[in-house]
Amino acid sequence: MDTSDLSSNRTADDESHPTARRIQRLSLHLTPVPRPLDHTDVQLETLTCAARPKLNVDANSLLVFMRGKHRDIQEKVFDFFNARPDLQTPVEISKEDHRELCMRQLLALVREAGVRPFRYVAEDPSIYFALLEAVGSVDMSLGIKMGVQYSLWGGSVLNLGTKKHKDKYCDGIDNLDYPGCFAMTELHHGSNVQGLQTVATFDPFTDEFIIDTPNDGAIKWWIGNAAVHGKFATVFAKLMLPTHDTKGASDMGVHAFIVPIRDLETHQTLPGIEIHDCGHKVGLNGVDNGALRFRSVRIPRDNLLNRFGDVSRDGKYTSSLPSINKRFAATLGELVGGRVGLAYSSVSVLKVSVVIAVRYSLLRQQFGPAKQPEISILDYQSHQHKLMPMLASTYAFHFATLHLVDKYSEMKKSHDEQLVGDVHALSAGLKAYVTSYTAKSLSVCREACGGHGYAAVNRFGSLRNDHDIFQTFEGDNTVLLQQVAGDLLKQYKEKFQGGTLTVTWNYLRESMNSYLSQPNPVTARWESEDHLRDPKFQLDAFRYRTSRLLQSVAVRLNKHSKTLGSFGAWNRCLNHLLTLAESHIETVILAKFIESVKSCPDASTRAALKLVCDLYALDRIWKDIGTYRNVDYVAPNKAKAIHKLADYLSFQVRNIARELVDAFDLPDNVTRAPIGKQSEAYSQYMQYVGF
Amino acid sequence: MDTSDLSSNRTADDESHPTARRIQRLSLHLTPVPRPLDHTDVQLETLTCAARPKLNVDANSLLVFMRGKHRDIQEKVFDFFNARPDLQTPVEISKEDHRELCMRQLLALVREAGVRPFRYVAEDPSIYFALLEAVGSVDMSLGIKMGVQYSLWGGSVLNLGTKKHKDKYCDGIDNLDYPGCFAMTELHHGSNVQGLQTVATFDPFTDEFIIDTPNDGAIKWWIGNAAVHGKFATVFAKLMLPTHDTKGASDMGVHAFIVPIRDLETHQTLPGIEIHDCGHKVGLNGVDNGALRFRSVRIPRDNLLNRFGDVSRDGKYTSSLPSINKRFAATLGELVGGRVGLAYSSVSVLKVSVVIAVRYSLLRQQFGPAKQPEISILDYQSHQHKLMPMLASTYAFHFATLHLVDKYSEMKKSHDEQLVGDVHALSAGLKAYVTSYTAKSLSVCREACGGHGYAAVNRFGSLRNDHDIFQTFEGDNTVLLQQVAGDLLKQYKEKFQGGTLTVTWNYLRESMNSYLSQPNPVTARWESEDHLRDPKFQLDAFRYRTSRLLQSVAVRLNKHSKTLGSFGAWNRCLNHLLTLAESHIETVILAKFIESVKSCPDASTRAALKLVCDLYALDRIWKDIGTYRNVDYVAPNKAKAIHKLADYLSFQVRNIARELVDAFDLPDNVTRAPIGKQSEAYSQYMQYVGF
Repeated sequence: MDTSDLSSNRTADDESHPTARRIQRLSLHLTPVPRPLDHTDVQLETLTCAARPKLNVDANSLLVFMRGKHRDIQEKVFDFFNARPDLQTPVEISKEDHRELCMRQLLALVREAGVRPFRYVAEDPSIYFALLEAVGSVDMSLGIKMGVQYSLWGGSVLNLGTKKHKDKYCDGIDNLDYPGCFAMTELHHGSNVQGLQTVATFDPFTDEFIIDTPNDGAIKWWIGNAAVHGKFATVFAKLMLPTHDTKGASDMGVHAFIVPIRDLETHQTLPGIEIHDCGHKVGLNGVDNGALRFRSVRIPRDNLLNRFGDVSRDGKYTSSLPSINKRFAATLGELVGGRVGLAYSSVSVLKVSVVIAVRYSLLRQQFGPAKQPEISILDYQSHQHKLMPMLASTYAFHFATLHLVDKYSEMKKSHDEQLVGDVHALSAGLKAYVTSYTAKSLSVCREACGGHGYAAVNRFGSLRNDHDIFQTFEGDNTVLLQQVAGDLLKQYKEKFQGGTLTVTWNYLRESMNSYLSQPNPVTARWESEDHLRDPKFQLDAFRYRTSRLLQSVAVRLNKHSKTLGSFGAWNRCLNHLLTLAESHIETVILAKFIESVKSCPDASTRAALKLVCDLYALDRIWKDIGTYRNVDYVAPNKAKAIHKLADYLSFQVRNIARELVDAFDLPDNVTRAPIGKQSEAYSQYMQYVGF
Repeated sequence: MDTSDLSSNRTADDESHPTARRIQRLSLHLTPVPRPLDHTDVQLETLTCAARPKLNVDANSLLVFMRGKHRDIQEKVFDFFNARPDLQTPVEISKEDHRELCMRQLLALVREAGVRPFRYVAEDPSIYFALLEAVGSVDMSLGIKMGVQYSLWGGSVLNLGTKKHKDKYCDGIDNLDYPGCFAMTELHHGSNVQGLQTVATFDPFTDEFIIDTPNDGAIKWWIGNAAVHGKFATVFAKLMLPTHDTKGASDMGVHAFIVPIRDLETHQTLPGIEIHDCGHKVGLNGVDNGALRFRSVRIPRDNLLNRFGDVSRDGKYTSSLPSINKRFAATLGELVGGRVGLAYSSVSVLKVSVVIAVRYSLLRQQFGPAKQPEISILDYQSHQHKLMPMLASTYAFHFATLHLVDKYSEMKKSHDEQLVGDVHALSAGLKAYVTSYTAKSLSVCREACGGHGYAAVNRFGSLRNDHDIFQTFEGDNTVLLQQVAGDLLKQYKEKFQGGTLTVTWNYLRESMNSYLSQPNPVTARWESEDHLRDPKFQLDAFRYRTSRLLQSVAVRLNKHSKTLGSFGAWNRCLNHLLTLAESHIETVILAKFIESVKSCPDASTRAALKLVCDLYALDRIWKDIGTYRNVDYVAPNKAKAIHKLADYLSFQVRNIARELVDAFDLPDNVTRAPIGKQSEAYSQYMQYVGF
């Protein structure tokens, strides 16, 4: 909330006049108050009479700087679907029709447009993610359906299987002869994957595994591609090996198995398998999620995806990894690409939403000074407050997720261990942070566009409904942030034991000492615009906050673990840990943003990006001003200056908002919302309705 | 964000040990960190080993205290629809079918169940609102369809018309022979009603008004009941009277006219009227919103709703009110009931959502200490943080909106002028505040319920989609909050001119002086639980904040109006004004909550309510701690104590969460979500899916 002005009368207070006299004096110069529905008497002095001129932005230079590396394949996708009205998802469509359409879209992409996503999964993930972005903008259901097929089902074969699996399945996965599922989640277990109940018992007599659902809670649930189209499923189950003692079987932990679920010819569900439709969802109804129960389903021993652990003909377990936990971590670690894709796609959704909201807010006029034309709603401070920090965040996330994609691609090539750890934490953190932010922003955009934002054709509803689950699948955001916090604590500990830090954490190595010292009482009072817009001040503030949160939570965890045990202590500090994780992610995002600004070759474009970056940084600092005030990192007047500058920067960014959203380079046939069209928005909207 | 612990190591800092040494010392006692996906080594010390025992709540006493006055009519509605599966809205339904079903639901309610909502609109609004709540829980589209028919179309005849209109239309409105619309909003104008462009020109030769849509922007848009069912519309248009000068016509401001739009027999659209379907919406697709264009549509002079202004046979204008603005205010003022209904209904939606989320979060177990059963997700601090302040807010809003309904009913009887002003501001403020809060909370609840929260059958999607527009219609929330701020400034000014204050504002009269004095440096350091849980401390803090915001914005407006004019100054202070309005509404809500707690006759129930109220108050103070810190209203350690206590109270409220949601008295056939059932939730969910 906007509250700095609570202190705006400090000076008067400090003069120690009797309060009553001051109030009386104030009351004398109270102006008539314009009320929004009744301001026929107001005069014109538009906001545009600001102290400094509007920045000039070279729209083309900005666009070129923002443009991704793989625009060509995205345009191929756009062009293909634009030329095929029969493959476009209508605003209203039943669940059944949507699922069939979605499958037809995917088949057409692969077999008619000749785009082969699976090859990029293996060869160049950054192209895969660019493709995912383009396909998701055609219909997010299609993006998810594609992700299930290639990244989850395909990815499990590729990353958890060995040569025999690739030889047998990869062609069919690639050409869609083998549509498949990724059957991990159960009715009772989502986040706690180690708690999965489905069992795969090795039968040494027949050389098979027997897949079983031992209780209702173990029914595989939410399995994409299962309700209608899937022929195979990678099923995650506890591997049970027979023992010769009284226990009878030994639990080797969760492993992945390829289970055929429908006949390749007849598409009949195979014996022992019961499949039900999970039904209508909040969004993504083009994806056919199903629930699966297994009753003694036998699969050959070869169907164990055996990269990290294998069973020999005589039932012996072998693995290059020493423990269940290590194998489990390795198995899940290979699936990190999904999170990278979600973080990246979430930014795309945010872009579409921000483009529509900003364009409409520039077009829409409502109220104005007396006897003057009405003004654009984006000229209202409140509207700038809603949308401009969001636009700045979109830029920030754009650079951060591109960085993540690069790191991920690098990791897939080098398999460098430190990089693996870094990408794991960064993808968990960015996925959680960005998807939560986008989810909230979609609601803000809808509301900012008023009634017309509520028309389904204007997209906010379906974007929100489709995107909503991004916060949950591929790792619940609250759980993922805890992984980030856990990683930070591990690194913190290692730092003091002389260990190495991953790259993302260099800032701690470099300057932990200075961040943990008392705030400097002199700089805490600096409040010039130059100082506040200095990236060093901004980044220092972010890093200081993260370092303090890390240090204090480490102390608290230590204290509480003595009485509550480590699980209890963790829980007692949970809100603190989540704040720490978010603070760290924000620090990484800001650092990357600052770096990207610096790397921009064109001076005027760089100035525009710097403005956006400053808004991102100061808005974040202001939103958490209590933290900084509480440790006197900023003095009261500095807090006020930050607030004032953040409002002013929002106003400045508003002045180049059109250029900033244009630079996302989303053609009208991608944004699609009539109210977000680049021209003739109202008449296109009328046309849609039938006028 | 949770950040108090930034300062948790202040003591260590203050000891001035060399930082490096301290860090080294800390590093020595770092505990192993449990990671959420990997805590096989943690030990059990559950959170339930808290210092104080769980409160005992008499569930029945709480339920009786919370139960509304008009439960009987609500149960009649529930029973009627429960007995009629043919009238229940399925999870998936096409727009066309939904609209027809919704009309059948409304007809059945009126003609079969014999419920006559229109009578309550006129005679006892509190029954009408209770009915709206019940009907909205059957299907929110039905609630809105009913509101369009009775509160908007019916209400316009009742409140803006005179005897001739009531005699002619009320029976048909009541028995649904005359389904009607409320045609105010246009394509280009929503909030700015005075900017409407539709014209009604008086033709003295034929004694008629000619209704015209002069340009595309003036097309009536979003008109409920217009696309399919409406026979009439109350059309808001600028009344033009012929003059004898060169201008030819004089604009008398916006008036309301009854315009027949479809033939009573054939249901054909009448000549000169063009109607299109506004199409699929984000939600509420049972309501048929349409767009209307008028081309020289002639209506008799009698069709002017002439309570506040009339035109004589010879074209002379008469009114008891002196100016266009006064007449406009009187016209809109009569429509305040819609806002009361929305605030009240929004709380009902919030209740349903909170009930489902809390029940499921108690049921759902995930992770736990090593070798122990998994724990309920509501036992996690982070989950309590998401849901318990929300539950407390739901209680707070419950009492506040009941109070609003009472005041509104009183106003409709007494027509007391001060009460009118009070209800206007309070309904605007509560509608805006509550609907924004509910909208955000619905998303939080979905996310808190993870994947199963994404199943459409579990309600969060449709609740959110249907409720979303509550933030916009009947007054955009940002505009309404400005009206509250405007009202506060008016009252502030009047206070110093010896005028009277409305009841809601008494707190300013009583203690403005003390609130505007400097914070007391002694009490700023009090941090005992008794002090923080003292309603006086809490209310003082809320009032202090509002008073400071009000005083400082008045000063700023005065300053800026000299250079920017009053419109520009208002805009320059807009974020500040919105914060002021929210702060005021929160103050009113807290005051009413404290009063309601005191009025509870049963001691143990009162203690439970007091706990919930304390959480509401302290959570709000903590969420805006920057404000209080910035003026040293609370010292750093007090801020920390508030944070700690708010977390602790969340934990305490969690311990009685089941009783608290049960007290909303929402039967399973109202909440409907399988995961929110009072028992056998998982198996009912499985059954729904087909197992």
